[in-house]
Amino acid sequence: MTTALLTDMYELTMLDAALADGTASRRAVFEAFARRLPPGRRFGMLGGIGRLLDALRDFRFDDADLAYLRDASVVTERTAQHLADFRFTGTITALPEGEVYWPGTPVLQVEGTFGEAMILETLILSILNHDSAVASAAARMVIAAQGRPLIEMGSRRVHEDAAVSAARAAYVAGFGSTSNLEAGRRYGVPVAGTAAHASVLARPTEREAFAAQIALSGPRTTILVDTYDIAQGIRTAVEVAGPELFAIRLDSGDLLVEARKARDQLDSLGATGTKIATSSDLDEYLIEEAQGAPIDVYGVGTRVATGSGSPTAGMVYKLVAIEGADGSMRPVAKKSSSKQSTGGDKTLVRFPDGREAWTLDGSIPDGAAAVHETIVDHGEICALERSGTERARATAAAAIAALPARARRTARGEAYRTSEEWSA
Amino acid sequence: MTTALLTDMYELTMLDAALADGTASRRAVFEAFARRLPPGRRFGMLGGIGRLLDALRDFRFDDADLAYLRDASVVTERTAQHLADFRFTGTITALPEGEVYWPGTPVLQVEGTFGEAMILETLILSILNHDSAVASAAARMVIAAQGRPLIEMGSRRVHEDAAVSAARAAYVAGFGSTSNLEAGRRYGVPVAGTAAHASVLARPTEREAFAAQIALSGPRTTILVDTYDIAQGIRTAVEVAGPELFAIRLDSGDLLVEARKARDQLDSLGATGTKIATSSDLDEYLIEEAQGAPIDVYGVGTRVATGSGSPTAGMVYKLVAIEGADGSMRPVAKKSSSKQSTGGDKTLVRFPDGREAWTLDGSIPDGAAAVHETIVDHGEICALERSGTERARATAAAAIAALPARARRTARGEAYRTSEEWSA
Repeated sequence: MTTALLTDMYELTMLDAALADGTASRRAVFEAFARRLPPGRRFGMLGGIGRLLDALRDFRFDDADLAYLRDASVVTERTAQHLADFRFTGTITALPEGEVYWPGTPVLQVEGTFGEAMILETLILSILNHDSAVASAAARMVIAAQGRPLIEMGSRRVHEDAAVSAARAAYVAGFGSTSNLEAGRRYGVPVAGTAAHASVLARPTEREAFAAQIALSGPRTTILVDTYDIAQGIRTAVEVAGPELFAIRLDSGDLLVEARKARDQLDSLGATGTKIATSSDLDEYLIEEAQGAPIDVYGVGTRVATGSGSPTAGMVYKLVAIEGADGSMRPVAKKSSSKQSTGGDKTLVRFPDGREAWTLDGSIPDGAAAVHETIVDHGEICALERSGTERARATAAAAIAALPARARRTARGEAYRTSEEWSA
Repeated sequence: MTTALLTDMYELTMLDAALADGTASRRAVFEAFARRLPPGRRFGMLGGIGRLLDALRDFRFDDADLAYLRDASVVTERTAQHLADFRFTGTITALPEGEVYWPGTPVLQVEGTFGEAMILETLILSILNHDSAVASAAARMVIAAQGRPLIEMGSRRVHEDAAVSAARAAYVAGFGSTSNLEAGRRYGVPVAGTAAHASVLARPTEREAFAAQIALSGPRTTILVDTYDIAQGIRTAVEVAGPELFAIRLDSGDLLVEARKARDQLDSLGATGTKIATSSDLDEYLIEEAQGAPIDVYGVGTRVATGSGSPTAGMVYKLVAIEGADGSMRPVAKKSSSKQSTGGDKTLVRFPDGREAWTLDGSIPDGAAAVHETIVDHGEICALERSGTERARATAAAAIAALPARARRTARGEAYRTSEEWSA
């Protein structure tokens, strides 16, 4: 399977016209950035860079791809032949995956010919927009949980392939594990999961269901106690597993109220070490609210996998410079109305205090450091172990730790910074 | 590639315990349904059935899958051996794809052994929840557009594989085409697209960019006129293409205002037949508002591909009946607190006036007809041409046409019906 047709048709139409008039071979720079953060967000977290490199490796047009493009008259024969030999030969730099970004931050730059850089637009944006949406939401939940572990369990609410990527993005942002087996296999994300209500309903009694689970896993397992009556479920679970039961899970009702009642009951039964795990439409706001309750583990589903109300990061991919007839690079930018941006090949820098700026002449202001790293070097993809997932996770942990208190607040607010041109 | 690991871990843990105590081989019925519609929605549209059949065909555990499950200690060796031979042998019935549904409608039922039916949960829900979310939003946009054509162009805002499925779901609901090439190849969805701002910015002048496009496509193309100044862009487009220019596209600004100005200008230039296409964060509300403006084609991106504010349909998959020790089927349902449902093997019926009900004894009330069709028959997948996309599209068109006026309103409202047990 190639990834070449995960592309909007107009890119190939534009390539067709650009091959005809010679524009395709001019040197060009494209930039990916978000004009604004989703409503209420104080920072964004970049996700998807590792997955993008995997996808770029497969971005070529095979015979089946070309047959479709010819049959559907998407491109002329000249362009079909050009695509048959297509290999990206340019250079891509990016903010490290897991880093935070702001409105205007150039998170990724592609330098190559106009033709080869332009046709990567859809693939780059799809991956960065999805994974950054999930990572950005997940990072807020990680902050709200203040060290309590989070399990990602949203697979069933979202597209089956997006689910795998969402599990990875949540893990990058600091979740501890996922329910998604393919994310475990493909990216090495730790997997977790014990039982659903079906397990209880399938047996004549709740006791038989708990006994079956404990016969398999021993008492170091998590028992779902809310199928019929929570208090009775807890009593039965401790009777069957003994006070060394690892955890109970609550999946319905007012979790704050139920968790307090469950803690008291577990303690009275001598199961003082038994943890309480909760799930049921949790998001960063409910997690923050639940911090006062005796909850030990949060299972988060729909809200993390769908970006907690903002399922896309809203990044765009814009031509910012192109080679002129005289061989020099010309900065370009759309001018009309509501969607302005700034042209030019930008060098992104950050200062030790976290401030961010970019320069157009390649200079690095005193005390600042360039933050992009090269991920594709003249067509050579820089190899990443298992898509760089563990490295991105370490980057995210450091980035979250470095955020000022104002940026770490769960309450809706404004972007804490913006990325602007450097002025001393 | 198999689809077997697109699964939550707990399903295999539960299978493990159920194989050990014999529950896995009991006959069982599971049901997929939505407890409620997304906020403000008057109806839901079922998507994903055709894709589900494709995915079920590949739901088997190959050596690589099993190696991961063993290495990660997800299952015991007995269960790994069971999975090596796994083939679904049960029967699945469903509402036809493209049909409308209500809170409580059993949209899909799986009958088989407890083990084989249970482990399909994540795959079934992922596909139905995603595709139904997009189809439901798209159907509202189709209604709002009152026959004006819609192009789906949201690929870049969502996960790269979800984008392909979203394009299919929007087409099922009545969109006319998509920008996504893979959706064109895989499902036969018509593809569309001409040029982006990069095409204009890459040339020294807008005129040269338009000339390059028209040299390739002739005047029956759509020219993007808002890179610099819309009025100048339109003048140049008509000069270069002539008054037989097919269409202009506006991608920014107040589309209602700009469309009226553009219409006047085109008419004054003699381009009275030139159409106006718009894009830029359109959704069903903006489309409805724009019906008074001279807009001929709507390009819809983010909002359709992300379900217009509701990126998941919120369907669940619940055990509703299981074979008891005496061989009879026992209805089951979760009882506690906020997530109640009704047990039993339901027969879904509809009346000629659109009312819906279900019976638990298999009877069909006078004047009603059963609406589920068998899509997997004792393990045999009922073959569908190209995932049944055209058939689902015809079903959707008929279902939308049959909706009463109250259900067709764009304004936020309540679900127009609910699905309940039949009582004469």
